[in-house]
Amino acid sequence: MEPRGDVYDRNCPTRVIANHATGQWGSLVLGKLLGGDGESGAKRFGELRRAVTGISEKMLAQTLQALERDGLVHREVHPVIPPRVDYSLTPLGAHAAGRIVGLFGWIEENLPNFMAAQEEYDARRAENV
Amino acid sequence: MEPRGDVYDRNCPTRVIANHATGQWGSLVLGKLLGGDGESGAKRFGELRRAVTGISEKMLAQTLQALERDGLVHREVHPVIPPRVDYSLTPLGAHAAGRIVGLFGWIEENLPNFMAAQEEYDARRAENV
Repeated sequence: MEPRGDVYDRNCPTRVIANHATGQWGSLVLGKLLGGDGESGAKRFGELRRAVTGISEKMLAQTLQALERDGLVHREVHPVIPPRVDYSLTPLGAHAAGRIVGLFGWIEENLPNFMAAQEEYDARRAENV
Repeated sequence: MEPRGDVYDRNCPTRVIANHATGQWGSLVLGKLLGGDGESGAKRFGELRRAVTGISEKMLAQTLQALERDGLVHREVHPVIPPRVDYSLTPLGAHAAGRIVGLFGWIEENLPNFMAAQEEYDARRAENV
């Protein structure tokens, strides 16, 4: 039987992998590499940096490196002058990204519900002060 | 038309909500509240603390508060002595948790693939040193 991970176990490697895939920046980078915007396929560092607003160069580099090591992202260096580096999803990465984009799309559609919940929570808090 | 969020926009509230739902602790708490382990339903603070290994009391309290404010988690104070507080998923939270548990299950099943990718990456790195 194949070993199976357990994300709830702090010592299981899947805890860290889940973190890379669903974390603040990893999830957005995977989502953009899937290209729900119609522009699927490989992307360059600068394109990703512009697409994921708010990410720093350092965070993007660290995020891509972690995703590459986990086998979710493929890094291709093209031997041209100047060198060109493309990032794309591996089959594993495409599956993870599909699930993440699904969750994000659902969150985006439900923005009014989330805002209503937050307003209700804040009003309840204000009453109790 | 309903307003729709955009998680890639750093100023959109969905960015923060996505972070709460998919972040390191929020995702694990939602997953445990769904109870993929067969023990679904409401859980107490201490149960969650034991189920999500590695989480501190402070982080669990902050995580539950953020999830409650977003409308993903319901907090019920029972008027008994001593007071009992239960945490459960709202319908919104159950939907989000279902998607997260699906992704986590897939990551857990693919542990051997992730380990193989990491070993290959590390070997390639070692060659280039």
